[in-house]
Amino acid sequence: MTAVRYELIKTCKQSGARLGRLHTPHGVIETPTFMPVGTQATVKTMSPEELKQMDAHIILSNTYHLFLRPGHDIVREAGGLHKFMNWDRPILTDSGGFQVFSLSEMRKITEEGVHFRNHLNGDKLFISPEIAMEIQNALGSDIMMAFDECPPYPADYDYVDKSLERTTRWAERCLQSHARPHDQALFAIVQGGMYADLRRKSASQLTSMDFPGYAIGGLSVGESKELMYGMLDCTVPLLPAQKARYLMGVGSPDALLEGSIRGVDMFDCVLPTRIARNGTVMTSGGRLVVRNAKHARDFGPLDPNCGCYTCTNYSRAYLRHLLKADETFGIRLTTYHNLHFLLDLMRNVRQAIAEDRLLDYRDEFFDRYGMKDNDRGF
Amino acid sequence: MTAVRYELIKTCKQSGARLGRLHTPHGVIETPTFMPVGTQATVKTMSPEELKQMDAHIILSNTYHLFLRPGHDIVREAGGLHKFMNWDRPILTDSGGFQVFSLSEMRKITEEGVHFRNHLNGDKLFISPEIAMEIQNALGSDIMMAFDECPPYPADYDYVDKSLERTTRWAERCLQSHARPHDQALFAIVQGGMYADLRRKSASQLTSMDFPGYAIGGLSVGESKELMYGMLDCTVPLLPAQKARYLMGVGSPDALLEGSIRGVDMFDCVLPTRIARNGTVMTSGGRLVVRNAKHARDFGPLDPNCGCYTCTNYSRAYLRHLLKADETFGIRLTTYHNLHFLLDLMRNVRQAIAEDRLLDYRDEFFDRYGMKDNDRGF
Repeated sequence: MTAVRYELIKTCKQSGARLGRLHTPHGVIETPTFMPVGTQATVKTMSPEELKQMDAHIILSNTYHLFLRPGHDIVREAGGLHKFMNWDRPILTDSGGFQVFSLSEMRKITEEGVHFRNHLNGDKLFISPEIAMEIQNALGSDIMMAFDECPPYPADYDYVDKSLERTTRWAERCLQSHARPHDQALFAIVQGGMYADLRRKSASQLTSMDFPGYAIGGLSVGESKELMYGMLDCTVPLLPAQKARYLMGVGSPDALLEGSIRGVDMFDCVLPTRIARNGTVMTSGGRLVVRNAKHARDFGPLDPNCGCYTCTNYSRAYLRHLLKADETFGIRLTTYHNLHFLLDLMRNVRQAIAEDRLLDYRDEFFDRYGMKDNDRGF
Repeated sequence: MTAVRYELIKTCKQSGARLGRLHTPHGVIETPTFMPVGTQATVKTMSPEELKQMDAHIILSNTYHLFLRPGHDIVREAGGLHKFMNWDRPILTDSGGFQVFSLSEMRKITEEGVHFRNHLNGDKLFISPEIAMEIQNALGSDIMMAFDECPPYPADYDYVDKSLERTTRWAERCLQSHARPHDQALFAIVQGGMYADLRRKSASQLTSMDFPGYAIGGLSVGESKELMYGMLDCTVPLLPAQKARYLMGVGSPDALLEGSIRGVDMFDCVLPTRIARNGTVMTSGGRLVVRNAKHARDFGPLDPNCGCYTCTNYSRAYLRHLLKADETFGIRLTTYHNLHFLLDLMRNVRQAIAEDRLLDYRDEFFDRYGMKDNDRGF
């Protein structure tokens, strides 16, 4: 018996989108879903109550960061990540692979695992598939991710081929060393860079093992949106229909829509929280930089079509003032709005799938409010 | 008719403390009370809902800061400070005097007012009693403060004498130029440095004019606590019993208790919010620096005797992690706790006055939990 079970409710008659439910030890997630990112055991500036208020079903936290600080032993002693951070809904933890590989000059990859330096203090550290499992078992997330290699973009064919083969071997080692399969589900990550046949090869190898869910990794790394959608088109159909599908690191409204249309169930991205800290918000009219001088005397809400806490109670003029004055409350308010915006979008996506009209909804989403092309990606 | 009316409910039979109610256009304040400071139209990191949850009756905001940014014209256009910041309970604004005089090298005092440079961009600016009233009338606070000079400490007798005379003349000009006496109350500020006879002189001059409340300014500026209490002892008895009394810039637990015992009704201080940002919290056992390494595996609450949101839901280990990782949510949680701690203290002070046992309560407060002398002031 697996800790997590995907239930397919229906498929959109107008697209490949799926309406589903992901059953986990900490509750049910309605899919397609967007997962706010809580890198260091907190979704930056937000309380758990606020995340529930905006109806976040699941959040993501980063294995690499928690391994470094406070250390997974401390989180285990606290009773696990849920208890440590006071979040009783589902948590997905990534494998740490993406962060470790992003260190570039500071790491060395071997078959055994990856040697790297702690970016906080320079200490030498090592993560292998077994250690990634040990850390995530200590964190106690509902969904763990297999330790993978995310190749750079661009990368040549041979490198990506060898890399995905290693990712497959590592996935097998993860499966073997996973100590709590009845409490925590382990998802594998399909790699293969921007090569369709390598994507198919990776998917084929990983689906031959029995994982309760599959992620598509190594996308949204600098390639064009068209190329990313092409990779989804050749990968998703190879993934089993009775398992959840997760597109990693994607959170712009257009990509959430296009990913859902192609049959993806789960997404995560730091985009909404990161741009919020710079004073940029997502609105039904497109991107809005509320720090700009033109909003100094603008007493309307960020988005007249939004019913979130921020838009209900605060003006652009007030938000601009807070951001200019480096007041944290301003970032709380823009973060709340951006997360609400994406979670609201996903609610509408689920509704549109239920009504077999997701392609129509996508077009309406962009056209109704006259959102410009270059605003779609934020 | 004045905008604000103080109602004396009873005097403690064991001390000079007063239980009262301050009636304002935005509601009733139970006194003695502590006012959280929202310098830039926000109590740092807190939402209005959180301030209400911890039962803050009134907050303070700073005229100088809002004059500079976003500018009082913008706040007026927004419909006033209450609407701008989404706070529908009472607000007190200071006069800007204290901040302007703190600029030391950057300002020049004349009988007309004070010339100074904007600390944000170096622009030349000027505030007079009339301008301080214009700004505060635009902000629309329930309680405005007269523009005063807060002399440095130490300062010689003649300087303080001349200064308090000017503060009296300025108070009269404030009274004359106050445009909204029916909506906003204007409090005068007693000065006189650390000279008992000058304190009496200032109090006598200002109480001869009819202000709806009186503040005691120029204390907690570096002098000993004993000296401060001595100044209260010679000033408070000269203030009219039917008017509110406000001790400016004081917020350590011992001073809140001693001030209440001496008949003060209102206090404000940045202390609880400022030390919270450095990871220091007020507890029933004294000062606690939650950033310290010894709390890394401490899974208990900040204060086992506290029922606040932070202490109910989060451990010292989690808070230490958040603060070490520069996560804003950690500061939200320590700020919440510290403000709750002082507001809870003031609730207990009011209860103790009602029961005629404030001196006993003061001793219990420090003794019961073994709070050390040097922890009392935080």
